[in-house]
Amino acid sequence: MNKNEPARLAAAAVDGARLWESLEEMGRIGGFADGGVNRQAFTAEDAAARQLMVSWAEASGLTARTDAIGNLFLRFEGKDPMAAGIMTGSHLDSQPTGGRFDGAYGVLAGLEAIRAMKQAGIRPRRPVEVVAWVNEEGSRFQPGAMGSLVFSGQARPEDFLDIRDRDGETLAEGLDRLLASTPAVGAWTGPAPAAYVEAHIEQGPILENAALKIGVVEAIQGTRWYLVEVRGETAHAGTTPMARRKDALTTAVAMVHELGQRVPDREDTVRFTVGRFEVAPGSPNTVPDRVLFSIDLRHPDSRVIAAASQQIESTCQELAGPCQVTVTRATDVPPTHFDADLVNSIETWAGALGLDHRRMVSGAGHDAMHLARVAPTAMLFIPCERGISHHPAEFASPSDVANGARLLAAVLTDLAG
Amino acid sequence: MNKNEPARLAAAAVDGARLWESLEEMGRIGGFADGGVNRQAFTAEDAAARQLMVSWAEASGLTARTDAIGNLFLRFEGKDPMAAGIMTGSHLDSQPTGGRFDGAYGVLAGLEAIRAMKQAGIRPRRPVEVVAWVNEEGSRFQPGAMGSLVFSGQARPEDFLDIRDRDGETLAEGLDRLLASTPAVGAWTGPAPAAYVEAHIEQGPILENAALKIGVVEAIQGTRWYLVEVRGETAHAGTTPMARRKDALTTAVAMVHELGQRVPDREDTVRFTVGRFEVAPGSPNTVPDRVLFSIDLRHPDSRVIAAASQQIESTCQELAGPCQVTVTRATDVPPTHFDADLVNSIETWAGALGLDHRRMVSGAGHDAMHLARVAPTAMLFIPCERGISHHPAEFASPSDVANGARLLAAVLTDLAG
Repeated sequence: MNKNEPARLAAAAVDGARLWESLEEMGRIGGFADGGVNRQAFTAEDAAARQLMVSWAEASGLTARTDAIGNLFLRFEGKDPMAAGIMTGSHLDSQPTGGRFDGAYGVLAGLEAIRAMKQAGIRPRRPVEVVAWVNEEGSRFQPGAMGSLVFSGQARPEDFLDIRDRDGETLAEGLDRLLASTPAVGAWTGPAPAAYVEAHIEQGPILENAALKIGVVEAIQGTRWYLVEVRGETAHAGTTPMARRKDALTTAVAMVHELGQRVPDREDTVRFTVGRFEVAPGSPNTVPDRVLFSIDLRHPDSRVIAAASQQIESTCQELAGPCQVTVTRATDVPPTHFDADLVNSIETWAGALGLDHRRMVSGAGHDAMHLARVAPTAMLFIPCERGISHHPAEFASPSDVANGARLLAAVLTDLAG
Repeated sequence: MNKNEPARLAAAAVDGARLWESLEEMGRIGGFADGGVNRQAFTAEDAAARQLMVSWAEASGLTARTDAIGNLFLRFEGKDPMAAGIMTGSHLDSQPTGGRFDGAYGVLAGLEAIRAMKQAGIRPRRPVEVVAWVNEEGSRFQPGAMGSLVFSGQARPEDFLDIRDRDGETLAEGLDRLLASTPAVGAWTGPAPAAYVEAHIEQGPILENAALKIGVVEAIQGTRWYLVEVRGETAHAGTTPMARRKDALTTAVAMVHELGQRVPDREDTVRFTVGRFEVAPGSPNTVPDRVLFSIDLRHPDSRVIAAASQQIESTCQELAGPCQVTVTRATDVPPTHFDADLVNSIETWAGALGLDHRRMVSGAGHDAMHLARVAPTAMLFIPCERGISHHPAEFASPSDVANGARLLAAVLTDLAG
C-alpha cells in the first residue's frame, strides 16, 4: 500500500451528511429559532453540549478524559499508546448571540475524521484526540481561549477560579457545573501532543470572495485587550452647569470617538473594537460617575500593535479631562506563526484532494495560537457565507463543511502514521 | 393679636435639632456608610421610609391617607374640615446613589412645620397636609414625578402599572409592596388644595456662592427626555474589516459626542445629559448591534428647548451611518411659572424672618411643577454644599435646614389662616 493510501481512504470515508446532522443537533443546544446560539462557557447549555459530545464519543469507542480547567479530550487509541498523540479540535462555547459553526465545526469535524478513520479500517500508530477547549469566547469570563491557555502551561486554573460574571457567578461555580455533568469522565494525562491541527470557519470574506474551498492558515494576527475605567462624579442633570461636571460618560465617549479616528489605518488592516461599555449609575437624570469599556485590538504585525497600543494609552490619558482614567492591558497574545512543515502538509493534501486553496492569516484568535507554544500547529479554514460570524446568520454550506472534514481526516491520518 | 402673629409663633417653634434628627433617621433607610442613600421608588427601602413617616405622623396626631398610585398624605385637621387644604411636601425616594436631603428634606420640613404649629398652639382654619409623592426620581420606573403627575390628573395609575424595571419587576408589584407596608392607611379624598408650597435643597451652587439663605423659586425650567435606539449588526471583532461593520456603539458614540458639541450653549444655560447608555450584546470581541441611550435636556425657555430638540433629532438621523436609529420623546414637561402671589408671600416672609434671599429658577424638576396645574404653587430652596446633589456627598447645614423649615412654617400658617 502506498504510504499516502490510508489518508486517502480516511478522507473518502468522511460522511458529510452525518457531520451535518451532528452540527444541527449540537446547534439546538442553546439554539434560537433564527439559527443563532447562546451557549456561553460554563453555563447549563455548555454542560449539555459536553454531555452530547461524550455520548457520541463513547458510541464511537473513544475514551473521554478531562483536565482541571474542564477541557474535554476524546481519544482514539493508537497502536503505540505511549506515543505522543495527534490532537485536533476547537471549542463548543459560543458568543451570547453566536452561530452554530464557530468552534463546534472544528470539534465535530475532528470527531467525523476519527469516525472515518475507523470506518476505513485504519488503526494509526499514534493516538488521535479530539479536544473541546473550554471558554474560547471569553464573553462571560475573560480572558478567552482559557482552556488552551491552561493546557499550554501559560496559566493555571487557580488564576481564573475567582473571576465573576456580570451576575456574580464565579468561574469555579461554572466549572463545577460542567464537570458534574459528566461525572464518569477521568483525568487526562499524556505527553505534549506531536501535532495539533484545528479546523474552523474563516469568519471573514476572503475564501468566499475568491471562490476557494480551503484556507491554509499560516499565522494568526496578534490580539490585545484593554479595559478602560473612567471615574468622574455623579451630579444632578438639571442643576449642574456643564462646565462644573465630571461626567464619566462624556469623557469615555470622547475617548472612544477619538480612538476610532486615530487607531484604524487607511488600508483597513487594523481591527479596533469596543464591545463592552458599562455606565453607572445609569439613571437618565444623573450625570454618570463611572464607565468601564473594553478595547479589542488586532493586527498580524507586532510593531503595528505596539504603535496602536501607545496611541490608545496616550489618547485615554490626553482626553481624561476632569475625570480619572485607568487603562489596564487585559490580554496580550502576540501574532502566531504556525509550523512550516505542518502548513506545507495541509497545503499538499488540499491539492491532492482537489480542493482549491490559498495560504492566509487568521483574523480571529483561536485555541491553536496557544497550542503552537507546545506542539507543531496549524489550521485549516472553510468558507462561511458573507464572512458573517458571531451572529445568528453565520453559515457554512454542507459541501464546504464536508470538504474541510475530508482534508482534516487525511492530514490527521498522515500525521498519526 | 396681629394677623401675622401666629405665623411668627409657628416659625419660632420650629425645632432645628428635632428636624435634623429626623433627617438622620430617615437617611439610615437605604443608607450607605459614606452618607449616601439608595432608596429607589417602590423598593423595600421606600416602603420602610413610608412606615417611619406614618409612625411619626401618628405620634403627632396626624391622619395618614393614600391614593391609587401610593402618594402618602399626613393631615393636620383644620377648624373647617371642609375647606380646601394647604399642601406641602416632596418625595422620599432617592437616586441609586443619591443623598439624604433631596426630597426627604421637603417632607420632613413639612412635618416639622406642623409640629411647630401644634406646639405653638395654632389651630388653623384650613387643614394642612404633608405629602410624600411617589417615584419622583424615576430611576427605576420612568417617567419621574409620577405621583404628582397622577394627583394632578395628567396621567392615570393604569398608564404605569405594567412598566418593568431592569430586573423585570413591574411597577404594580412594587406598588403592592408599598401599600402593604402600611395596611391601616385609608384612602385620600378631598378637593384640590388651596395652595402647595414645596421646600427643597437647591441642588445647585447659586445660593451658596451668593451667601444667601433662601431661594424664592418663581419657575422651573422645562425638561425633555429622549430615548435613542441605534441598531446595527453583530460581527466578529477580529475578522470584520472596519469598512464592512454596522457598529451600533461607534455610531451611538459619534451621536453623543457630536450632540455634546452642538447642544450646550456658550453661556452654559442649557443642561444636556446622557445618563443611561446600554450596549448589547456587550462582549469584548463582538461588534455591538444595539445601543439604547437617554437624553435629558433642560432650559427655562421653551424656545431654546424646541431648538435643541430639533438639533437632537436631526443630528441622530445625520450620524446614523450604516445603522438604523429611532429617536423617541419619552417625557416633555414645559417650563413652569409659579403663582405670583404665593411667590410674593414667600419672599415677604423670608424678609420678615431676616433670611437673606433671592428669586431664582429651579434647574431641577420637582413635583411642584405638576401641582402648579391644579393649585397656586411655589417653592423655597435652601443652599446645599458645593451644589452637589444626586450624590452621597450631598449636604445642607443644620442651620440652613432649620431656616427653611422656619420659613415654611410661617408661610403655611399664613396660608391656612
